[in-house]
Amino acid sequence: MKDVRKLKLEELNRIDLSEFKNIDKIPIVIVLDSIRSGLNVGSIFRTSDAYLIQKMCLCGITSTPPHKEILKTAIGANNSVDWEYYENSELAIEELKKQNYVIIGIEQTNNSIEIESFKVDTSSKYAIVLGNEVEGIHENLLPLIDTFIEIKQYGTKHSLNVSVCAGIIIHAFAKHFHAK
Amino acid sequence: MKDVRKLKLEELNRIDLSEFKNIDKIPIVIVLDSIRSGLNVGSIFRTSDAYLIQKMCLCGITSTPPHKEILKTAIGANNSVDWEYYENSELAIEELKKQNYVIIGIEQTNNSIEIESFKVDTSSKYAIVLGNEVEGIHENLLPLIDTFIEIKQYGTKHSLNVSVCAGIIIHAFAKHFHAK
Repeated sequence: MKDVRKLKLEELNRIDLSEFKNIDKIPIVIVLDSIRSGLNVGSIFRTSDAYLIQKMCLCGITSTPPHKEILKTAIGANNSVDWEYYENSELAIEELKKQNYVIIGIEQTNNSIEIESFKVDTSSKYAIVLGNEVEGIHENLLPLIDTFIEIKQYGTKHSLNVSVCAGIIIHAFAKHFHAK
Repeated sequence: MKDVRKLKLEELNRIDLSEFKNIDKIPIVIVLDSIRSGLNVGSIFRTSDAYLIQKMCLCGITSTPPHKEILKTAIGANNSVDWEYYENSELAIEELKKQNYVIIGIEQTNNSIEIESFKVDTSSKYAIVLGNEVEGIHENLLPLIDTFIEIKQYGTKHSLNVSVCAGIIIHAFAKHFHAK
């Protein structure tokens, strides 16, 4: 393409930290159920910043800021995105249920909907639960979850990287709220 | 949800390595233009495996398998997905242009289309160029690119992590080919 140029940082019109704290967020909470790698947690912070996610609930063995790996991949998004730590995901989910969040589990189950088929209702609030890199979502949480969503895959591996999976799911949900 | 259970590995019907080598791929090539982190390269291998991407072109300073960081995040997908190394991305793109690939640059430019607005034509072949974590796509490649696509972002950070960005873009393209 001729005469094309990359935008300069100031042309991207990014908001600063104090604007971020004051801007309306979209009603999506991300629940990380014992994510082992701080690199994944940090990357999910960065994605949550980009889409104005309301809050992240860091549960169980999920590491919390400040943590060397989180800082490496969050590049500061751990300061913008609100987060809370819960000793276990059950407590987080039960509190979110009381606040009328629809609880979405990202998991390959006998009753999962493909992300393309799920209709996002922008009058609802959603909590999106992502499980451990190896074990997935803890068994004891399954009864608490309203809807399971999966990303259809065709290759040799069991699953996508959890921060990539989070990116695809957050993008798919957030675009409906930002288009409002 | 009651009576829900996670699928066992054998219920996911994943293909094995020899089936992967023989199965029809989707006509998408991923061009990595000097990606610094092997962790990002490995993660993009894993995503490319999941969506049956045709080939990855690893260019410039992009590390190539075997490499400790790639192996950590690719978890073997570097053996399934075909890849080639090019000393610079220009050579890769010029060859792909000769083979009638539409060259897509993922970059925030003065002339980028949002991913939601881009119409994927499943009778076309696409090469998707992803740039360096800090610098983006090299300036000298811009004239070779047919269409620029960006992912709209609302937060404080300049961009998404490149492997998350790759995941969102590959998913958005691949779903049309897999729905054929």
